[in-house]
Amino acid sequence: MINRLDYRSPDFRSRLRTLLAFEASQDAAIENTTRDILEDVRLRGDAALLEYTRRFDRVAADSVAELEIPRADLIAARDSLPPDQRAALEAAAERIRVYHEKQRGESWSYTETDGTRLGQKITPLDRVGLYVPGGKAAYPSSVLMNAIPAKVAGVPDLVIVTPTPDGQRNPLVLAAAAIADVDRVWAIGGAQAVAALAYGTAAIAPVDKITGPGNAYVAAAKRRVFGTVGIDMIAGPSEILIICDGTTPADWIAMDLFSQAEHDELAQAILLCPSAAYLDEVAAAIERLLPTMPRAEIIRKSLSGRGALILVQDLEQACAIANDIAAEHLEISTENPEFWADRIRHAGAMFLGRYSSESLGDYCAGPNHVLPTSRTARFSSPLGVYDFQKRSSIIQVSHAGAQTLGPLAASLADGEGLPAHAGSARYRLEPGSSSS
Amino acid sequence: MINRLDYRSPDFRSRLRTLLAFEASQDAAIENTTRDILEDVRLRGDAALLEYTRRFDRVAADSVAELEIPRADLIAARDSLPPDQRAALEAAAERIRVYHEKQRGESWSYTETDGTRLGQKITPLDRVGLYVPGGKAAYPSSVLMNAIPAKVAGVPDLVIVTPTPDGQRNPLVLAAAAIADVDRVWAIGGAQAVAALAYGTAAIAPVDKITGPGNAYVAAAKRRVFGTVGIDMIAGPSEILIICDGTTPADWIAMDLFSQAEHDELAQAILLCPSAAYLDEVAAAIERLLPTMPRAEIIRKSLSGRGALILVQDLEQACAIANDIAAEHLEISTENPEFWADRIRHAGAMFLGRYSSESLGDYCAGPNHVLPTSRTARFSSPLGVYDFQKRSSIIQVSHAGAQTLGPLAASLADGEGLPAHAGSARYRLEPGSSSS
Repeated sequence: MINRLDYRSPDFRSRLRTLLAFEASQDAAIENTTRDILEDVRLRGDAALLEYTRRFDRVAADSVAELEIPRADLIAARDSLPPDQRAALEAAAERIRVYHEKQRGESWSYTETDGTRLGQKITPLDRVGLYVPGGKAAYPSSVLMNAIPAKVAGVPDLVIVTPTPDGQRNPLVLAAAAIADVDRVWAIGGAQAVAALAYGTAAIAPVDKITGPGNAYVAAAKRRVFGTVGIDMIAGPSEILIICDGTTPADWIAMDLFSQAEHDELAQAILLCPSAAYLDEVAAAIERLLPTMPRAEIIRKSLSGRGALILVQDLEQACAIANDIAAEHLEISTENPEFWADRIRHAGAMFLGRYSSESLGDYCAGPNHVLPTSRTARFSSPLGVYDFQKRSSIIQVSHAGAQTLGPLAASLADGEGLPAHAGSARYRLEPGSSSS
Repeated sequence: MINRLDYRSPDFRSRLRTLLAFEASQDAAIENTTRDILEDVRLRGDAALLEYTRRFDRVAADSVAELEIPRADLIAARDSLPPDQRAALEAAAERIRVYHEKQRGESWSYTETDGTRLGQKITPLDRVGLYVPGGKAAYPSSVLMNAIPAKVAGVPDLVIVTPTPDGQRNPLVLAAAAIADVDRVWAIGGAQAVAALAYGTAAIAPVDKITGPGNAYVAAAKRRVFGTVGIDMIAGPSEILIICDGTTPADWIAMDLFSQAEHDELAQAILLCPSAAYLDEVAAAIERLLPTMPRAEIIRKSLSGRGALILVQDLEQACAIANDIAAEHLEISTENPEFWADRIRHAGAMFLGRYSSESLGDYCAGPNHVLPTSRTARFSSPLGVYDFQKRSSIIQVSHAGAQTLGPLAASLADGEGLPAHAGSARYRLEPGSSSS
């Protein structure tokens, strides 16, 4: 059922390319609708926001203030959780916090011998908006993974927008918002919520950055407001790539492939292994275990469409292929996994050793589960505290420093034909200096 | 000639808002042309690239290989520079390198008491493309500011694309490429060059990220290929904001305003000062010095259109306004500038004290001159080494760690309705554990 590839086949490279190809289509109709909604909310503010919320979520409110979910409701949702679920969410939140605290950047500077000081000042963003989808794709773990890095960065004002179709709230999301110390929650969604966050309305203050997953309209809206505000990456389908030496229990690997495939029919789950016999074992485990899975239909479609068991020559070749794929999640399920991890240049997250299942990282190991997909790990990074901080250069030139730097700058400005730049540098020279 | 604003006027806030308003228009015709060029180069590769280069740059080549500017030509350009200009470029390059070396991120990890190891591995990008405009907007300093951080990050393959209209090469740009150790230079430009870098052709290997300024077509092309490759920010018009206590020589401040205004009629130069008499002095200096400036017409249009001298109540108010403007360049030309800098949360670069003219930072102080414009300093940072590195999470769960984390992950996965996630965590539990 799952695809089988073999490095010895003459068409191996072309089959691999076909398997990996994924075209993130940008639908023109969605783009046009989104543009109109953004423009309307920008011009008419709260009135437009209320209309779209009535139309799309079937929630009628007379004012945007009525759409705020008060802090007391978040606390109540948290306190109503079954005790073990609450404990698990709080334990996960604590581990995520500890890990992300290691990422916080600190301002730095150095002073040269002539007294000139150079550096960078690092500050948190003022206001961040976190989009949380409504309905079944709303995961409390995503609330933690987006909100905690922002709070660790020191963002003073963190708001969630989340649609409540027909007024249905997701209590797990509200509980996670309480645990992550989110400041405010608005029951709005779609492109209209993105517009409200980006441009602001009378009721909703504009934010500086919008993060979090959403449907095609939300993604198109985020693309469009990028520049007015910052955004995180637009995520593609989730991916797992497993490199296995053939000695991990086959059932474990089959279940790890399932755990990616159960997300979505477009999710991609691939295993690389130098042992054909082991690949047969995993294939048998897949056939045996699949009927027991509640989400078997989604898993079957994902594995037969985009999944593969791939025979490779050796683990060296597996690492080369992994660098080309640049997967979101990479499990290295081998003896001495550090040795192979040293050979990996591109991956969103690396799970080393047989006990590091991706699911542990998805929920509670500590690192972020918002990771670069669709080969973007070649140039981008997991969501982190650094996404909620920014830097300002510090340039404090001393009187003596201006005498050294001035002639340099003036010479280069002359070369570029920018005389006011040169003049501005020369004004700072002592009278009588050779370049003044 | 330059606008005058006064905090005491009843219409102060609305005049300030009007002054700052800038709509970065996205022209539909440019977007459509760009889309067609990108698609054509993606499908037809080198043949399309050669055709567009012939049409737009009037450069006829039989193969893309002919469009490479060989390393020997870069070295020759460097060796043909006037000695003082070469020395200035090399000195600037060295200072930029020293500063950026402080930004290099290092991999980190920590091991918990149960043996679980968590961290991030930091690696350079494999291949980066740097766009350098042709003609008069091509600045050797920009080559240094883009290329050196990439090289400090450890990017092994750094290529420049730069159009050579009618075959005209810019020797300063080639010399800067030699000094910055750029690996290859291609004489191609426009959307077709962006397409070649993003998608690759038979002759040109695809890159992972594209940085550098360009015209409206280049900007539209970068926006469009974002996701396939990384891009830097799309820059708006350049801006300077000066906070002055009224004791810096008025001529210095006038020239600092000119140095921004001479870039572009849309550039913005604003002075905030609590002394009306000092603002009059600066206004007089502007009138007196302007006729001496070679680029007087551009400066006049910039200052009368978008420039302003603004009377503020005190330096506290100046800082509040500066945080709202979030300027690309902020000069704090006061006594004890650190005191006021502590109050600034948003600025691309801060120039502290009377000797720190922006022009020193533009060329040779060391920090990068590629800075966030158009209020994006609220959420983004100067170009830096961190833009050419990326992170991979490291998750190495020990056998003991899996016993602690497994039940947590399984409980959360159950809550989210993802049973394969739960199964994958439970498989790693010892038989007999309560959650297995």
